[in-house]
Amino acid sequence: MHCKQILGITAIGVASLVIGILIGHFEITPAKPAWLQRMSKDGDPKYSHHLFKEIQAEEIRKNLQFFSSKPHIAGSTQDEEVLVSHIHKTWQASLHGAKIYNYTVLLSYPNASDPNYVSILSDDGTESDLSEKVEKILSPDQNDPTVVNPFNAYSPSGVIVGDLVYVNYGTVEDFHYLTRNLSLNLTGTVAIARYGKIFRGDKVKHGEIFGCAGMILYSDPADYVSGSLDRVFPVDWWLPGTGAQRGTLLQTNGDPRTPFYPSTSSAFYLDERDIELPKIPVTPIGYNDAAKYLSKMSGMEAPIQWQGTLNITYRVGPGLASPFEKSKIKLYVKSYNVQRSIKNVFGFIEGQYEPDRYVVLGNHRDAWVFGAIDPSSGTATMMELSRAMSQLLKEGWRPRRSILFCSWGAEEYGLIGSTEGVEEMGKVLGSRTVAYLNVDLSLAGNSTLRALATPILHKLLFAAAKKVENPNPDEVRAGRKTVYDTWVKNLPSSYDPNIPRVGDLGSGSDYSPFLQLLGVSAADVRYTYDQKYSLSSYPMYHSVYETMDLVSRIMDQGFKYHQAVARLWGEMALRLADDVVLNFDCVQYAETLKRIVMEAQRTYGPMLQEHRMSLDPVREAVEEFHQAAKSLQGRAEKINRENPLEVRKINDQLMQLERAFIDPLGITGSIYHRHVIYAPNRHNLYTASSFPGLAAAMFDIENDPNQERRWQQVEKEVSVIAFTIASAASTMQDTSSIGGVSGKY
Amino acid sequence: MHCKQILGITAIGVASLVIGILIGHFEITPAKPAWLQRMSKDGDPKYSHHLFKEIQAEEIRKNLQFFSSKPHIAGSTQDEEVLVSHIHKTWQASLHGAKIYNYTVLLSYPNASDPNYVSILSDDGTESDLSEKVEKILSPDQNDPTVVNPFNAYSPSGVIVGDLVYVNYGTVEDFHYLTRNLSLNLTGTVAIARYGKIFRGDKVKHGEIFGCAGMILYSDPADYVSGSLDRVFPVDWWLPGTGAQRGTLLQTNGDPRTPFYPSTSSAFYLDERDIELPKIPVTPIGYNDAAKYLSKMSGMEAPIQWQGTLNITYRVGPGLASPFEKSKIKLYVKSYNVQRSIKNVFGFIEGQYEPDRYVVLGNHRDAWVFGAIDPSSGTATMMELSRAMSQLLKEGWRPRRSILFCSWGAEEYGLIGSTEGVEEMGKVLGSRTVAYLNVDLSLAGNSTLRALATPILHKLLFAAAKKVENPNPDEVRAGRKTVYDTWVKNLPSSYDPNIPRVGDLGSGSDYSPFLQLLGVSAADVRYTYDQKYSLSSYPMYHSVYETMDLVSRIMDQGFKYHQAVARLWGEMALRLADDVVLNFDCVQYAETLKRIVMEAQRTYGPMLQEHRMSLDPVREAVEEFHQAAKSLQGRAEKINRENPLEVRKINDQLMQLERAFIDPLGITGSIYHRHVIYAPNRHNLYTASSFPGLAAAMFDIENDPNQERRWQQVEKEVSVIAFTIASAASTMQDTSSIGGVSGKY
Repeated sequence: MHCKQILGITAIGVASLVIGILIGHFEITPAKPAWLQRMSKDGDPKYSHHLFKEIQAEEIRKNLQFFSSKPHIAGSTQDEEVLVSHIHKTWQASLHGAKIYNYTVLLSYPNASDPNYVSILSDDGTESDLSEKVEKILSPDQNDPTVVNPFNAYSPSGVIVGDLVYVNYGTVEDFHYLTRNLSLNLTGTVAIARYGKIFRGDKVKHGEIFGCAGMILYSDPADYVSGSLDRVFPVDWWLPGTGAQRGTLLQTNGDPRTPFYPSTSSAFYLDERDIELPKIPVTPIGYNDAAKYLSKMSGMEAPIQWQGTLNITYRVGPGLASPFEKSKIKLYVKSYNVQRSIKNVFGFIEGQYEPDRYVVLGNHRDAWVFGAIDPSSGTATMMELSRAMSQLLKEGWRPRRSILFCSWGAEEYGLIGSTEGVEEMGKVLGSRTVAYLNVDLSLAGNSTLRALATPILHKLLFAAAKKVENPNPDEVRAGRKTVYDTWVKNLPSSYDPNIPRVGDLGSGSDYSPFLQLLGVSAADVRYTYDQKYSLSSYPMYHSVYETMDLVSRIMDQGFKYHQAVARLWGEMALRLADDVVLNFDCVQYAETLKRIVMEAQRTYGPMLQEHRMSLDPVREAVEEFHQAAKSLQGRAEKINRENPLEVRKINDQLMQLERAFIDPLGITGSIYHRHVIYAPNRHNLYTASSFPGLAAAMFDIENDPNQERRWQQVEKEVSVIAFTIASAASTMQDTSSIGGVSGKY
Repeated sequence: MHCKQILGITAIGVASLVIGILIGHFEITPAKPAWLQRMSKDGDPKYSHHLFKEIQAEEIRKNLQFFSSKPHIAGSTQDEEVLVSHIHKTWQASLHGAKIYNYTVLLSYPNASDPNYVSILSDDGTESDLSEKVEKILSPDQNDPTVVNPFNAYSPSGVIVGDLVYVNYGTVEDFHYLTRNLSLNLTGTVAIARYGKIFRGDKVKHGEIFGCAGMILYSDPADYVSGSLDRVFPVDWWLPGTGAQRGTLLQTNGDPRTPFYPSTSSAFYLDERDIELPKIPVTPIGYNDAAKYLSKMSGMEAPIQWQGTLNITYRVGPGLASPFEKSKIKLYVKSYNVQRSIKNVFGFIEGQYEPDRYVVLGNHRDAWVFGAIDPSSGTATMMELSRAMSQLLKEGWRPRRSILFCSWGAEEYGLIGSTEGVEEMGKVLGSRTVAYLNVDLSLAGNSTLRALATPILHKLLFAAAKKVENPNPDEVRAGRKTVYDTWVKNLPSSYDPNIPRVGDLGSGSDYSPFLQLLGVSAADVRYTYDQKYSLSSYPMYHSVYETMDLVSRIMDQGFKYHQAVARLWGEMALRLADDVVLNFDCVQYAETLKRIVMEAQRTYGPMLQEHRMSLDPVREAVEEFHQAAKSLQGRAEKINRENPLEVRKINDQLMQLERAFIDPLGITGSIYHRHVIYAPNRHNLYTASSFPGLAAAMFDIENDPNQERRWQQVEKEVSVIAFTIASAASTMQDTSSIGGVSGKY
């Protein structure tokens, strides 16, 4: 070739190279660094599959064996040392970090050498018909020297002698029936109330208000046994007559001596006399013992709805019938309150791109006795989920956001560990937590999934439940292949039979401080029993009979239900941690609000109208909320996922929506309940009340002598609800508007 | 050429092209999209220069002329219609959006046809020595039919006849002197208090507590005139004897009928009888009138520190001296409270990359009369700053974060507009506001800059002041070329003479709801007078004499001081809006906390020790805070600015630090003051108290009969402070730790 040709060829080559460089740099793909591309993609779906595969029923069985092998009441060495140390070491070794948090709090125990009991005291001073001081041992694994005798935490000590009165479930309505309809004076009586329907602490509070001097709590077979009493444990899972339900009477959450602040070393502790504790002695007994007292009662026959299923006629009293008419009931309680150290354990997986966003998973650790159901079925599940996630980490998985596992202490006493933890770390957890997913216990039965959640999480719950294989082979054979399928069949929504029912969050477990103090969207899931039984809880609740034998022999032989809960929980966590845009459904929140308003209209509308008030401002606010929710949801769907700040903006709006429902002044004066839409029913801490402030203001309003003050309170509550919902709506508007400033573009 | 050659050449070309493309795509530069590159760069410094150039003194002068041309008290047509509409239209046309917010709130006015006055009432019922019912007009621009007569807002109406008592400034200590040292019984007396030292509402509160039946407030020349009384206005800027200071007596912030909730259409309004309003009639007078009463007083000579500079001997009373010993003082007040509509106006510039982060700039609009200083000197400045920024927008500037301008209504009555606005939009503003920068008024004098700010903003303040040209030519000639140079010379810090003094934020202006309700870092700047005068405020404060004439003829002829304030304000806003990493100094917060603890130790240490308490837990928490602050600052400096989520994480930590000092329960029971480190002094709302809860608990503790209760309160406050600082420290830790969970890496 000639020089010219060579030059020409070279020139073509160089020119092509340059053009190529330019094309490559500016054109071919949108030029993006690899980390930015990864940052804009949802987590690899393969990790969901791997997680499901990794979660082993057999591992959960082993965990439960370990956690329920000994009694582990809050404040005990077993719970605060042995189990804490095990959890901490496990997480320290397998996750990115772990830490133990210590709080010194007020707990309560019965006197082991001088147990509580009930008896009949005749006028000559002799005692008879003493109740059992300990629960009868029915299987070998219930036999342990550290079993704590039946008691109700925070009951004062005392010996009460008085006339027996049967108060049914001890609701306000029950007490009103006795005092208003029957004109009974309950002052100085010993009330006997059956467990169920409402939180036991509220029964006692009502007893105090109506003048009772003491209270006996018992579990009636109507509420804890279905069918013949021959079928009770050890034959089946029904409560035997010797079982007594332990449980706290505390009305507040957290250490009662340090309200709103953590019980750390520099805490200011209120004096015990300055705090709200039960004022009357209380003890629980089994139904064999209850029958002895109830069968001897005098007075009118109790109404039909008050009749339990003991083979007796239930009478209201007061007092006992002939030949015991001169006898009294004696209630002997020797419990004591004491400062003890309790612990939370945290395990942490640090997120890759948004380490300052936390998906929090929690379960409590403390049990009244062995706790094979409550809470260790949940603990066994959480430990297996954390193990499975640690396996994913080894495979190279790293979640977009951080995942935090929490093992809470002293939940049974009044959500003490979780409340103190949230009080201590509220600023961090409040600004960073995406959602809190609680599993108090994994199974109360094996009929269907049961979930409580704020509306924003319903969609995610349904999606996760559809991905989890049905643990019940009969159901699978019937064509219901997933957890979701059985759920929607066995527990359909009351307003739409095509979707499952999701309950509202009360104050029954550790989600409460997250939801009520911080405004974090939360859920609580478990497997539960068939609703047809109309049980007040699973039968063995808080008795000595909640052991490994019960769970592994009767309730979940193959631990497949536990496994299903672990998978559901894990899937929800993975989605929340790995999806670029949070899978939160704010339109569902709007629709739920509409239903709540309709319900409130049905309940209160006519009375409000009589007083020239209406829910119109609330309705308008909900409409505003609905529009804003649809707009936010629309923007979330169309978002440019490659702009990390755009994504973060939308996610922050989704995450903070629940915060917008928090009223820092609290609902009806309670600093522990600040969620304007959902808070515990004032007369039953277990259940949630919609528009709790309004519900409290309207409760029994017609009997209040100060009508003006009460109706002003109603007016204020309607105003607060309307404002709060409108305020929540404003947080969902596009940032081109500030609280409604309309942009020009 | 041969085919082969052609093929060969083509092959070379294609190969080169492909190689080029590959090089271009993967190698040449770190492959980044342009938006990502821009997102990781601070704002172009040229915009700072352009902004400074754009801000014109002459424009500010024109603005002030417009805003101060007529009286514009809150609730008036001039303020709520004319000025609101002007501001709204201006912003609507020049910024990205604007909106008017309306609140219906409780205001207070004097009866225009039946003015308030003071007189001497002889025992035969004749009145003499009546005080002036209106202020004498001294320059033509003061003459307007809508000037509101001197009054104190929210004083009840009433006619009080009683013995006169001189109570100095009306502090608790002053009242203690009269009642403890002199054993005077003040019940039923009419107190005369001089303005100054503390908030006037606190003087009245103290008067009520000590039994006074009414109160006269007057401005003593000692506090409002320096030098000869010949030099008063119109000669110079000193207060003439005919001037009276208006002002609110409200102890709470916001509409008193809707505490904590906004006064919107669906609000619940408390009944007037259920709210905390002053209980005794009060009116302000000038010192000419005051001299008439003070000079006739009987009783002991007042202590030397109580002597003002009127040419009389100040006596404490009670009552008048011969020949007036049988006369009383009559106080005649006809004011009324009324619901009126007040308005806020917002103007919005939407940020480009972080539209959901707001830099908020605010100034109030309402004045007691013409308000040429308070607030219109600030309003004129804000309008010019917004105009200058709108020019930058035309040049192509677009801030990284959003900028929000706020014109607040009814500030003078008790921060009503800003409080209602923050109450209405708290969820949005609380989660998104980076900082709140207030200019209540631009100049109270022309000696030096004066700034109040939380410690996190000191560094930014200093940097901005160093960039602004000194408006004082004498100072420039003396080598002090910047605002900073004169500031550090005339107002050096009390602990380090090499830096300027920055005061603490009390509750004197609209920053209060941002700081105290939301925990937003805030600052307030102005030019002020020489400290050597020991004035209680600028002399004409809240009198009819605050007009354009005063400002443009005497105080700032060329509007250069206004311009300097506009530039400083603008520079701070630009930095906060445009810097990638927020220029927040959390180490300064730590150092300030250390000084506060040392000061608290000096003040309270010995008494605490006597009661076996100490500040050790606080000191430990501050140490923790200091370490965490240094660590966060270190991470902020070394950050990878190209990772937007990494940057956002650090910025969120910086932004949320101030939030961590908020205690939702409030300080000493006040829901309006929730900042644990700074809150208004309980006995003087104007000034800030460090550790306000502790200060309140310790105040006059030795005279409390219930020592046990008080010392328990002290113990609790120490605990709350220690906890809050430790909690704030935890928010600064790296996210690889959660509240101290140490990560493995």
